[in-house]
Amino acid sequence: MKVYLSGEIHTDWREQIITGAEGLDVTFSAPVTDHAASDDCGVAILGPEADNFWHDRKGAQINAIRTRKAIADADVVVVRFGEQYKQWNAAFDAGYAAALGKSLIILHGADHAHALKEVDAAALAVASDPAQVVEILRYVLTGALPE
Amino acid sequence: MKVYLSGEIHTDWREQIITGAEGLDVTFSAPVTDHAASDDCGVAILGPEADNFWHDRKGAQINAIRTRKAIADADVVVVRFGEQYKQWNAAFDAGYAAALGKSLIILHGADHAHALKEVDAAALAVASDPAQVVEILRYVLTGALPE
Amino acid sequence: MKVYLSGEIHTDWREQIITGAEGLDVTFSAPVTDHAASDDCGVAILGPEADNFWHDRKGAQINAIRTRKAIADADVVVVRFGEQYKQWNAAFDAGYAAALGKSLIILHGADHAHALKEVDAAALAVASDPAQVVEILRYVLTGALPE
Amino acid sequence: MKVYLSGEIHTDWREQIITGAEGLDVTFSAPVTDHAASDDCGVAILGPEADNFWHDRKGAQINAIRTRKAIADADVVVVRFGEQYKQWNAAFDAGYAAALGKSLIILHGADHAHALKEVDAAALAVASDPAQVVEILRYVLTGALPE
Amino acid sequence: MKVYLSGEIHTDWREQIITGAEGLDVTFSAPVTDHAASDDCGVAILGPEADNFWHDRKGAQINAIRTRKAIADADVVVVRFGEQYKQWNAAFDAGYAAALGKSLIILHGADHAHALKEVDAAALAVASDPAQVVEILRYVLTGALPE
Amino acid sequence: MKVYLSGEIHTDWREQIITGAEGLDVTFSAPVTDHAASDDCGVAILGPEADNFWHDRKGAQINAIRTRKAIADADVVVVRFGEQYKQWNAAFDAGYAAALGKSLIILHGADHAHALKEVDAAALAVASDPAQVVEILRYVLTGALPE
Amino acid sequence: MKVYLSGEIHTDWREQIITGAEGLDVTFSAPVTDHAASDDCGVAILGPEADNFWHDRKGAQINAIRTRKAIADADVVVVRFGEQYKQWNAAFDAGYAAALGKSLIILHGADHAHALKEVDAAALAVASDPAQVVEILRYVLTGALPE
Amino acid sequence: MKVYLSGEIHTDWREQIITGAEGLDVTFSAPVTDHAASDDCGVAILGPEADNFWHDRKGAQINAIRTRKAIADADVVVVRFGEQYKQWNAAFDAGYAAALGKSLIILHGADHAHALKEVDAAALAVASDPAQVVEILRYVLTGALPE
Repeated sequence: MKVYLSGEIHTDWREQIITGAEGLDVTFSAPVTDHAASDDCGVAILGPEADNFWHDRKGAQINAIRTRKAIADADVVVVRFGEQYKQWNAAFDAGYAAALGKSLIILHGADHAHALKEVDAAALAVASDPAQVVEILRYVLTGALPE
Repeated sequence: MKVYLSGEIHTDWREQIITGAEGLDVTFSAPVTDHAASDDCGVAILGPEADNFWHDRKGAQINAIRTRKAIADADVVVVRFGEQYKQWNAAFDAGYAAALGKSLIILHGADHAHALKEVDAAALAVASDPAQVVEILRYVLTGALPE
Repeated sequence: MKVYLSGEIHTDWREQIITGAEGLDVTFSAPVTDHAASDDCGVAILGPEADNFWHDRKGAQINAIRTRKAIADADVVVVRFGEQYKQWNAAFDAGYAAALGKSLIILHGADHAHALKEVDAAALAVASDPAQVVEILRYVLTGALPE
Repeated sequence: MKVYLSGEIHTDWREQIITGAEGLDVTFSAPVTDHAASDDCGVAILGPEADNFWHDRKGAQINAIRTRKAIADADVVVVRFGEQYKQWNAAFDAGYAAALGKSLIILHGADHAHALKEVDAAALAVASDPAQVVEILRYVLTGALPE
Repeated sequence: MKVYLSGEIHTDWREQIITGAEGLDVTFSAPVTDHAASDDCGVAILGPEADNFWHDRKGAQINAIRTRKAIADADVVVVRFGEQYKQWNAAFDAGYAAALGKSLIILHGADHAHALKEVDAAALAVASDPAQVVEILRYVLTGALPE
Repeated sequence: MKVYLSGEIHTDWREQIITGAEGLDVTFSAPVTDHAASDDCGVAILGPEADNFWHDRKGAQINAIRTRKAIADADVVVVRFGEQYKQWNAAFDAGYAAALGKSLIILHGADHAHALKEVDAAALAVASDPAQVVEILRYVLTGALPE
Repeated sequence: MKVYLSGEIHTDWREQIITGAEGLDVTFSAPVTDHAASDDCGVAILGPEADNFWHDRKGAQINAIRTRKAIADADVVVVRFGEQYKQWNAAFDAGYAAALGKSLIILHGADHAHALKEVDAAALAVASDPAQVVEILRYVLTGALPE
Repeated sequence: MKVYLSGEIHTDWREQIITGAEGLDVTFSAPVTDHAASDDCGVAILGPEADNFWHDRKGAQINAIRTRKAIADADVVVVRFGEQYKQWNAAFDAGYAAALGKSLIILHGADHAHALKEVDAAALAVASDPAQVVEILRYVLTGALPE
């Protein structure tokens, strides 16, 4: 099963899931999570831009080569909303994955529940802890429930 | 041409566009923009929920009947990000529309440009003023540029 | 908005919805609800069969010409499960519509909730009364909630 | 060839098919067939619900992560209707698979033939015994008929 | 309902169906049935060819502009196999329509049944008389059976 | 029948076809053919760019709102290659239309035949004169050949 | 590259191609070519039918499990029309493959050219000898032309 | 990641990219780049043509067997426009790939920027040097930026 881990890049939630899922038949993918590299990849490779808008555009489009393939290939897309920042790219990925018919798991704290109600409503599971995502993957793949 | 107007519901940007586009061969659609009705439609129709999470779910899914059809039918999806709130449903709609291959126009102020760079990168136009959206529609439909 | 009314044919739920939705911009479609005609259409038109299995096959396939077009054309598919009978064709229609990405509304009494949980889980609304379906359509089309 | 085995979970029909097909180039998949685990997976992983309806919803949606991938990946979907229960999820799976263009084999006793006529009419084979399903797979893969 | 009438061009079966269906909400389409025009349209419009193979190619491709649109737009494709000729284009149309998920009605005499078994097996009805096709359309559209 | 007229904007080939097709049931669409407007629409509406590359990008993407809808809606796409210029956008439109399964008619002089062989090979007709395109449309719609 | 070999079953053209293509990176598939098994598989596995029409139906649908998967999986579909028989299933396969966008190679003698003009017009190559099909595969995979 | 290298065949840009990408998890494909073989493959395999137009057609369609599969299988399509020739097949490939939703990288010198603005506008990156394409692939696959 192929799982794409979208969203927040400032905590270790991806590592928790990947470590927790060891031994399961899962392949994980993710965006580039180095914030500076992700922001600057466009100009670093294709040359500088005087205008920040196009600086950002060049980078965002190169990142899209990676993320669109990862979402298209995924069976399950997990989207994590953290405590900070706008995280519109996370919500964008959720919408993109929903339109492709991917199984969505949304991961966020209870305080975001109302603001994320449209996103959650497109998901097959809403979790609040990375360990729950691991348990979902374990159950889906093996039928085993947490003890 | 069918245009869906997604996003912010607290300013009159939709009215500005609809009024500005009078005389053009455009049909507009939009989500229910009455905030209270949109939040409570699920329980108002299908009965109350003790848990806010399911209160929200019921409403969000009924709203999805309207919004998914509107996006699916649209040729162009305009997504407005205002100054306030998380607006994750706007970003979700943008991702959903992008995956369906709709022509996206994103409408936001300059201060949101960096945070919206992935969303903007999926768009065919990024505008800062509703009048610009009107001019895009006019040009696309008639070939006329602003004087 | 095009709405297909699938399922139970022994009560007047379709008439309740169609009457209740008068004045709304909705076009309804439905299977042939004359039980005898529906069962016998194959042999009545194409000639008798000695074997009941093929008698049924001929009829079911002619009915499929009508139902597949109606589901394919629909924006919303309402599936009613009544108190009696196996109603496997209703559940089949629900699955068929779900795979096509149609907005599903499931209509059934509380006693069927557990047996229908997989079907309900694919729906955007689960109603127990035809009047609720009318209210959903009214809200989706006009934004008006029941008073 | 990938074969998904949907439906009844109270008899050993899956084991009969899997054992009978040993030596053939087939990969089988199936839903979680532990009834209690399947019913409770949602609350066991994501926390309890006061209302049975949402208890069921949480579980059904997690099960859908498994079943939708399995159906989407399958070349052939076998759906077994047993002697008991409503089995609406089996009919839902059949409709879902039919809409995706999967090759359907329906497996049921003669007494269900009339009630299943719409489902059977969407299938490429209707079998009454798991051994027949094995023979179909053997013939399709090797051209060999039963002796 | 849109119905494409494919196949034999040497008898009046199309007229029988169109006349019989008067009063029903059906729009019929058909290939160009003037044999000479159909054979020569390519060279008549685009200039002569020394080689019959390319003479035929030019014509067949111009005819395909008409037939592919007609099949793509159709809800139902009726394919008539007459008593004479190879009629490979009729079988090609049937396969093309089947792959697009169109509802197929095959119309032929009993003597062709074995040779057409794969084509018939993809159809929702196999008729032997144009009047039966009319009755199918009448039933599908109105629910009325022949008296 | 909907026909999109792509390519060369410096001769009156579109007018010849539209005039010639008067009386036929055809709706024509085309890109904005005012060269200056087409080049400058982006900056005229959304504000100036210091860098020509982004000046062009803004304009090309707004033009894409029009052309992608027109191609997506079309039954037939006619692509004209004139005597001058690179005309890569014409070839791009041809490839785009081919991948969507549109019926392609390519219109060019004999001297371009070898350079356009891959484009021609994806077409259902290759014409050298706008009058031939009119005759193709007339034949496809009415069955009438040129006298 | 996956190649499906459809059509005539009474000569050794498949063996000629498979032998000729040894060493190339091609996987071939084919229908069951044992005429008697192909005709009788339905009743041999699922039980006898009194009526030949349903005898044929049962067999044709089981064969379709094999052929539809093979065509769906194929990159290239080769369809051979021999000297004898109606071969409507071959033309049906060609139409089915064409609608799925498969690369078609049609293989037939010159005497069938006119009758197959619509089928040939949907193909990327028309060959008269199995050795030519081998050379096409060799060139497509390696760039090497016949010496 | 699968990358198709389309376009110019007279410089060593493909070799530069393939060599530069050594060690990355990429599989490259390309058209047949032997100009003479590409031009003559049709007649060399299927027999001579008196008319150059059909000589070209036969070859272009055989080449399409290779290129359509390569584009359909690709995650990323790189299209190189060189200094010379019309290169309409390159632009055609770009349009074809764009319509299939492939990630496009366009590679050309600055002097072609205006003429390629519609093509560039459909791309996720516009590079001027093969080494930049290598850096994009490296970053997309590993997250590493050039030093």
